[in-house]
Amino acid sequence: MRITDLRVIVHERETRTTFPGDPPTVENAVLVVVTDEGIEGVTFLTPPQPDVVKQLLEVVKPRLLGRDPLEIGAIWGQLGARRDLDPTTRSYVDVALWDIAGKAAGLPVHRLLGTVRTTIPAYASSWVLPDAAAYVDEAVAYREQGFAGYKVHPPSMHGPRAVGAATAAHIDVDIEVYRRVREALGPGYALFADPFFRYSYAQAVRVGRVLERLDYEWFEDPLGPDDLDGYLRLKQALIIPLLATELTLGGLPAHVLWAVSRATDYLRGDVVLKAGITGLVKLAHLAEAFNLNCELHDGYNARNNLAVLHVAMAIPNCAWFEVLVPHRPGRYDLEYLNWGLTAPIRIDGDGLVHAPDEPGLGPEPDWGLIRSRMIAELS
Amino acid sequence: MRITDLRVIVHERETRTTFPGDPPTVENAVLVVVTDEGIEGVTFLTPPQPDVVKQLLEVVKPRLLGRDPLEIGAIWGQLGARRDLDPTTRSYVDVALWDIAGKAAGLPVHRLLGTVRTTIPAYASSWVLPDAAAYVDEAVAYREQGFAGYKVHPPSMHGPRAVGAATAAHIDVDIEVYRRVREALGPGYALFADPFFRYSYAQAVRVGRVLERLDYEWFEDPLGPDDLDGYLRLKQALIIPLLATELTLGGLPAHVLWAVSRATDYLRGDVVLKAGITGLVKLAHLAEAFNLNCELHDGYNARNNLAVLHVAMAIPNCAWFEVLVPHRPGRYDLEYLNWGLTAPIRIDGDGLVHAPDEPGLGPEPDWGLIRSRMIAELS
Repeated sequence: MRITDLRVIVHERETRTTFPGDPPTVENAVLVVVTDEGIEGVTFLTPPQPDVVKQLLEVVKPRLLGRDPLEIGAIWGQLGARRDLDPTTRSYVDVALWDIAGKAAGLPVHRLLGTVRTTIPAYASSWVLPDAAAYVDEAVAYREQGFAGYKVHPPSMHGPRAVGAATAAHIDVDIEVYRRVREALGPGYALFADPFFRYSYAQAVRVGRVLERLDYEWFEDPLGPDDLDGYLRLKQALIIPLLATELTLGGLPAHVLWAVSRATDYLRGDVVLKAGITGLVKLAHLAEAFNLNCELHDGYNARNNLAVLHVAMAIPNCAWFEVLVPHRPGRYDLEYLNWGLTAPIRIDGDGLVHAPDEPGLGPEPDWGLIRSRMIAELS
Repeated sequence: MRITDLRVIVHERETRTTFPGDPPTVENAVLVVVTDEGIEGVTFLTPPQPDVVKQLLEVVKPRLLGRDPLEIGAIWGQLGARRDLDPTTRSYVDVALWDIAGKAAGLPVHRLLGTVRTTIPAYASSWVLPDAAAYVDEAVAYREQGFAGYKVHPPSMHGPRAVGAATAAHIDVDIEVYRRVREALGPGYALFADPFFRYSYAQAVRVGRVLERLDYEWFEDPLGPDDLDGYLRLKQALIIPLLATELTLGGLPAHVLWAVSRATDYLRGDVVLKAGITGLVKLAHLAEAFNLNCELHDGYNARNNLAVLHVAMAIPNCAWFEVLVPHRPGRYDLEYLNWGLTAPIRIDGDGLVHAPDEPGLGPEPDWGLIRSRMIAELS
């Protein structure tokens, strides 16, 4: 089998995040890796990265034409060694190649990775909402749909987009949200907190102690993504499990010190920021060697959510599948999880996400929808 | 697809090692995992382990009947959690399941693991020979066949089978062998030394300094397999790369301290002692996170050599493929590498081992040969 083309379909869709000033629509793109056997591998690119599209077509494509798409590890290594690519460019290619490999094998990708299970519990992961009541309504709504847990991205995320930028007022509001959600959901329901790098060390200690009393499952990314020393100090101050390394770049070796130094209780990653399915599996294996979980992060779009889901099915050391639900208050669907797929990712009434059964990544792209919003087709 | 049977064919073959007192023949066994789709996964068991055969039939088989053989990670985890199995029992099952997965996919196993390459340099790995001249003759013979390197298992291995059991006389003989082989092969040819745990710390320092002057590639297993502290001291005394962890048990987490403490320059493993293809890939990924190679060890028999070879094709961090050549002097074939296969593992005139092209592990067992030596068929 040989790669005969790389194509990128640029399209628009509605913005699902709720940061102030976000435009109503956003440009996304789809990468299609075409082969001479009629098999196509498809990845969704997002958030929009014009440089990545350019790199895919100008740098990657000339080097992949004529290559065997099943030399996934070789291509992963060669793209990873380049200095002229965004780290995510390789990720998108890798996901598309695993899609091809699964289709060539006639098997879902998780079968190629060594299936550990075919279901995993899901938690609904909020985006930022206007007040505590909106979080409570959302958490209750998704629990009623069957979700086994709920994660709060608190209001301080709408403050300045800088590490440690939360004010004292933000902290009060965040704590109110954490508290109200626990009161509404009752004891025993799995809750998670993720202030997305907005707290100072002192704020993280204060909030962390509250989260411990409220029996939250983990405290994710309280400090800056590179603040290893801060996390080490926080580990001394708190007993609630910390979850870091979502944004840690530098590849697999950059995660070793986080594990060795015990700065985090779990490693974290997704297929976009951790170099595709290949890179994410390696990260999970590193975590396994340290007897740590590698908790998987939302894949940023539907097709990469499928890719993350296949990894979740093939590693033992991940407890939860994240389902991001970035909607305005009062709308509790799963559009963000599934946009652009011909069939949704299956979540049953017990809050279990099911492994796709189709060869490759799973449900094919909804080309009718995507082409109806197409801006350009590039090759 | 469902597992419908596990069968073990016990057979005899000639002993290929040359330890004094070894019997002329040895019992081996073949594990066959049968499925309802006509696909069979086949592993060779060796060295002979009567307990493993018993465990496969009495403990493993009842738990695998009716299972989907493609749930490789789940079965790996469940067998690994048991306390009533030899660690290698799981390894054999895992290799057989990957054979099934490759056949189900219609692809060589390395394609499922993410192919990095399709060839790797091979070195011929001696067994113990009577004198330096015999090593020289063997090294020259295999170099003429194209092998890119040669490893000396020195005469001290025929001394007492205990850690650090070499005498001063052994050391003199070993050094003479290392020296004569280098002189005969000339500068630039890759040579390796593996005294298989026979040296004391002081002996290892003495020999290591000689090996440095003789420009050997690595110094493998000089000290006892659990002597982490000894290796740490040796790393301070020598600059030649050390290679340890071949016999390190305890699973993936047991290898972390070796990497963290820099007690060895590479990790080491094979599919038998590192829990199958699944376990060996995880070990290689751990090594990769530390920017270490994971140098792969001989698989103990032809079918597991195939399994190791597939892993070698799917990881970037292994420089060499080991081809053990345990023959009496004057016989320089590759029977040990290939015994029981219908086609040999391909090694070209440039000393490169080639990835098998067949679906699954590669060349099928030579059932005519195996059944001609059959002792019992168990189910």
